[in-house]
Amino acid sequence: MAKRKLTRVAKDFPERLPKRVTAKAFLAALKFDEHGLVTVVAQDAANGEVLMLAHANRVALEKSLRTGYMHYYSRSRAKLWKKGEDSGHVQALVTLAADCDGDAIVAKVKQVKGACHLGLRSCFAYQIGPKGYRKVGRKVFEPVEAYNKRKKS
Amino acid sequence: MAKRKLTRVAKDFPERLPKRVTAKAFLAALKFDEHGLVTVVAQDAANGEVLMLAHANRVALEKSLRTGYMHYYSRSRAKLWKKGEDSGHVQALVTLAADCDGDAIVAKVKQVKGACHLGLRSCFAYQIGPKGYRKVGRKVFEPVEAYNKRKKS
Repeated sequence: MAKRKLTRVAKDFPERLPKRVTAKAFLAALKFDEHGLVTVVAQDAANGEVLMLAHANRVALEKSLRTGYMHYYSRSRAKLWKKGEDSGHVQALVTLAADCDGDAIVAKVKQVKGACHLGLRSCFAYQIGPKGYRKVGRKVFEPVEAYNKRKKS
Repeated sequence: MAKRKLTRVAKDFPERLPKRVTAKAFLAALKFDEHGLVTVVAQDAANGEVLMLAHANRVALEKSLRTGYMHYYSRSRAKLWKKGEDSGHVQALVTLAADCDGDAIVAKVKQVKGACHLGLRSCFAYQIGPKGYRKVGRKVFEPVEAYNKRKKS
């Protein structure tokens, strides 16, 4: 029984890391899914607010670490994108943290204005609980202005 | 151009909610994937720490709201589970918040001991950034003791 437990533990992310962990070794130890993706939770580095959830492939994470700005992979558009490339609402990367499986990441970021395309600071703005429903989103920009900027300039 | 934008916005989660949002209406507006799942980020309601990432189907979310304790759907075991059912490290639900797509949820919870099967408070314990790698996990229980408890009693 103890032996089976040890085998299971060896499949965990930290066990797949070498002694000296470089960015390359960190990325190599991740468990990308059948589409080459991991899930990424972007979190406000200052106050812990969860801003958005997206996906990243290996190249997106490499680019994020190299440039200092979050890059993701859009499943619907089937392409790599830099967060804020249209709106200017970029996310400066502070740290990436992998979970015990190595298939999910929390990215602590400094978010310019808002993460949500509806103009809110966080995408997670629709809350239900024992006291019922309430919208908790904080509006920080006007979507129409933000997404038409590039076309105008 | 403006018209196309409006059509796109109407696909967002808040647009799918009725005027009076009950738990049933909230769940009905979610966008479950081809396996009937949404992604759930569990976050410490007290300090904002992201504890774990998992998946839930509609029944798991209904059970979470009804019982006040987080339930998930395990893709590897293909079954519904209550977080902490073996270890006792349950998550009392505070609120669920859906994102603008309605395919991801942040669950604010009160976590008993730790969320990670490796004995850590949070699963996201392996951090890389401009200053290199460091393990940031806080050990809060002994996995061997926690997961053998049920067999002994």
